[in-house]
Amino acid sequence: MAQTNGFMAAALDEARAAGERGEVPIGAVVVSDGAIVARAGNETRALNDITAHAEILAIRRAAAAIGDERLTGADLYVTLEPCTMCAAAISFARIRRLYYGAEDPKGGGVDNGVRFYAQPTCHHAPEVYAGIGETSSADLLKRFFQSRR
Amino acid sequence: MAQTNGFMAAALDEARAAGERGEVPIGAVVVSDGAIVARAGNETRALNDITAHAEILAIRRAAAAIGDERLTGADLYVTLEPCTMCAAAISFARIRRLYYGAEDPKGGGVDNGVRFYAQPTCHHAPEVYAGIGETSSADLLKRFFQSRR
Repeated sequence: MAQTNGFMAAALDEARAAGERGEVPIGAVVVSDGAIVARAGNETRALNDITAHAEILAIRRAAAAIGDERLTGADLYVTLEPCTMCAAAISFARIRRLYYGAEDPKGGGVDNGVRFYAQPTCHHAPEVYAGIGETSSADLLKRFFQSRR
Repeated sequence: MAQTNGFMAAALDEARAAGERGEVPIGAVVVSDGAIVARAGNETRALNDITAHAEILAIRRAAAAIGDERLTGADLYVTLEPCTMCAAAISFARIRRLYYGAEDPKGGGVDNGVRFYAQPTCHHAPEVYAGIGETSSADLLKRFFQSRR
């Protein structure tokens, strides 16, 4: 559990760094064999790319690092419940376990919205663990959106 | 209508080229102001990237070409019904109209599966036009998978 918290702390570091760059503060890490193999924060603004969510970037970087597009046996830690796009990408990448921080009732696609992993058209569902570091994650997002008003 | 068919023909060309590279033969083009601004075929194998679906690549290339991550007013033509990941990306990119060829009952996320555009967590839904060039699209996929057995 302490290790799990450490990986979520690394994801929160990525979220904080994203916020400092003016991006929505969401971060993710991919863990394989007990070590972080890829890290990413949201980069949609910097890359001018709506697909550049933290999870997508972390999955792409992990695939490059591991040399396999399928991340079978790897786990993903992300500070916010993945959206529909990212939930599907996590499934396609064959991620073993998904750990996320705060729930996202408006945009989430795991335990809210389309609940992709419960659908017959989902061909691989990761184990899902929610709520780790959720207060820190939600606070980061709240402060970010308050500061932009 | 003739123009619409021409854009789908361009997407089918991308699908064919993808198949010749050993990729699943799916292609897409993004059209803005009556002209194709981005083209892509599936490149998941070549890029070692499960997110490198034709739609995702076409959206990323169109954003780079137009200089705006939001493709408001642009239309996307794709040979197969988008999957859940791509359906969400098309929404995030604010695509105006989605034209697709064949339906995908097993993996689609537009008129099958999660039917993302009908969900309350979908904040922008494109107009959807299905079935243009569906026979050519389905034949390409069928031949590809038959040749691999």
